[in-house]
Order: sequence, then C-alpha cells, then structure tokens
Amino acid sequence: MILQKDIVVDTRGRGTTDVTRQVQAIVSESGVSVGTCQVFVQHTSASLMLCENADPDVRRDLEAFMARLVPDGDSLFRHQSEGPDDMPAHVRSVLTHSSLSLPVSQGACVLGTWQGLYLWEHRTSGHRRHLLVTVHGEV
Amino acid sequence: MILQKDIVVDTRGRGTTDVTRQVQAIVSESGVSVGTCQVFVQHTSASLMLCENADPDVRRDLEAFMARLVPDGDSLFRHQSEGPDDMPAHVRSVLTHSSLSLPVSQGACVLGTWQGLYLWEHRTSGHRRHLLVTVHGEV
Amino acid sequence: MILQKDIVVDTRGRGTTDVTRQVQAIVSESGVSVGTCQVFVQHTSASLMLCENADPDVRRDLEAFMARLVPDGDSLFRHQSEGPDDMPAHVRSVLTHSSLSLPVSQGACVLGTWQGLYLWEHRTSGHRRHLLVTVHGEV
Repeated sequence: MILQKDIVVDTRGRGTTDVTRQVQAIVSESGVSVGTCQVFVQHTSASLMLCENADPDVRRDLEAFMARLVPDGDSLFRHQSEGPDDMPAHVRSVLTHSSLSLPVSQGACVLGTWQGLYLWEHRTSGHRRHLLVTVHGEV
Repeated sequence: MILQKDIVVDTRGRGTTDVTRQVQAIVSESGVSVGTCQVFVQHTSASLMLCENADPDVRRDLEAFMARLVPDGDSLFRHQSEGPDDMPAHVRSVLTHSSLSLPVSQGACVLGTWQGLYLWEHRTSGHRRHLLVTVHGEV
Repeated sequence: MILQKDIVVDTRGRGTTDVTRQVQAIVSESGVSVGTCQVFVQHTSASLMLCENADPDVRRDLEAFMARLVPDGDSLFRHQSEGPDDMPAHVRSVLTHSSLSLPVSQGACVLGTWQGLYLWEHRTSGHRRHLLVTVHGEV
C-alpha cells in the first residue's frame, strides 16, 4: 500500500513550523500499520528537521547557531541574486535535510517522546512551501 | 515483506558505537534479499552516521571537530536545562542524521568497504538509546 | 516492484557532478509510477546533495563555505594518512548526505523546479565513485 499526499505551508519567514500532526494524519489516512513514511521538501532554501519539541528555546538556539555559522551577506558568497539571505538559505538546507524517512508502526510514525518534525524556512521573507509525503507499507 | 525491530544501546557518554553488525543481523533475519533498510534514532541528542571504519582516529577527529564547531556551554545558547552539553547535543543531532536509509541487496545492507554505521551519543553522560530498524523489500 | 541499479561516476577531484538525469533514467526503466527512490553513495569521502541547479555560483559558494568550515590540513586532525584533504573529506560527508530518499510520482522523481541531485566529491584528486539506486513502489 502506498499513499502520497501534499502538505502546503505558508511560512512567515525564517523559523520553524511543526508539521508532525499533518504528517501523522496522512499516515493515519493511508491505513498503513507498519512501514515507512518519507517526507520531502521540494525547495532548496527550506528544509526539514527532527527536533526537541518541549522547549521553544531549542529552536531559537538552533536559529541563532545557524545565523552565526552561515551569516547573511557573507562576502564569501557570490550568489546574492535574491538578497543577503539567499545563499545562506541554500547552505542551511544542505547542512540539514530535504528528505526525512520515518518508521511507521501501529498506524503512526514512531517518534521519540521529545521528537517533533519541523519545516525550517531559511529565507527571511515568507514563502509557500510544498512537502510531499509518501507512506509505504502493509495495511 | 517488512520486518521492524528495536536495537537498544547503552552508551557511555559522548562517542560512537558501531551498530553495523546488529543492523545486518536484522536484515538477515528479515529474509529480504533486495530492498531498503531504514535505521531511525528516537532521540534528539544522539544521531547516526556512516563513517570510515578502519582508523579510529577518524571518529576521534569528528568528535574534535564537533566540539570546536558546537562548544559546550556556549553563551549563544539559552536552553541549558540539562547542562552545558544539552543544547550542543541537539545541534549536533540536527547537523548529522536521525534517520539513515541503506540499500539491501543479496540479503544484506550494501555498504562500501570502509563504511560503518555508528550511533553517535552527543551527551557527556551515558544514556539508553532506542533505534528502530525497518527492512522492506522482496524475499 | 523493486529495481536496483548502479551508477558509476569518475570524478575529477573536489566538486559536484549532476546525476539527476541518470537517476531519473533508472526510475523510468523501473516502471514504478508511485513510490520512493533511494540513492546511496558507497563511500565516506564523497556525498550527495540536493541543490539549486540554475546558477553554478551556488555550488561554487557551497564549496567555498565547506573549505572555510573544514579547512584542509587543519592541525585539529590526526587522521592524515591520505593527505591534508583526507579527514576534511570525511567531515564534509558526515555533514551532508550518504543517502537521499526521493518521492516518485507519475514515473519520475518529484523534484522541485530548482532542485538538482549532485554527487559531491570531497577529495582533491579524482576518484571512481559508486552509487546504488533502489526504486520501490507500484507499477
């Protein structure tokens, strides 16, 4: 059994959006009880991460870490066609994940107690982001 | 054919544990001859990596690199509820992998000659870590 | 339905090779209309990335970023058996991806408009690199 569905997220600029519930709803709809769930971002300036979901400071700190590691407007970068956050967004995406594959058991993605699945917008302005979820396994 | 099984690793603090043999044993038990094997860590302060398995200095150097890139007790971080290694452990996890998907051929994960699969503990103290392995393919 | 096939790339040293077309050809050959396509690199000093495919400066900038983040010949590293680019190649591989899993829909990998799939050679000299592609889904 395979089910494939879109998630569309309108971001409000740099930051994270929790998509755990939307992904779990697709797994539930698929009827798959055991298998895998692939989540894929169709962009190169936004990405996915699994992250601690209890304390919002964790995501705030990750943002601060990335801002220091890959500074906007870095003179190292030639590609600046869409502004000082353009190339840093590509670097951040490559350093994190465009695709995440999760195990499915008993009809749901098996995440740890503190694991949330986040879409991470790396551009400073908001964008419409498309995710494709593919659930594959036994009903 | 799908087989899903746990691996439990009791780590002794920051460092790597080779789980290649345990994962290969699950693939073998599944009877799958061609397909995929997903390994998933149910934590946000430990991760997975494929790494050169011949010279232990490679993993020592990766540890040294991460310690420099994401220093413990960095004043950048607000989230310090579990100590100076708490937030760095989350950053290291996001920069590496919570999920790894390996090809299965002729009844085993097809790794390169020098590729080993490691669980990477990022906390300074030991933890009980749960991995979930999902093998999916044709018998 | 599962199809598994090799791609062999002879690299010319540090830099990227677009393998999107070769991967899409394997998906097409498989006859799979909906499912997943896993691409796996059997090496620990070369990796995979999804990257903006329009402006070559993006890949040039990523190369420059990695050269600064993980400098060749860094005195931090003990493992130098194959030269000053040996250990940096392992670090770059761990920070990027050995395995990428892509969604397949209507008989092709569903990439975003600007997403290309690249093999990233991290050694300064050319190497023969082996990729294994596994397509899995419904015909």
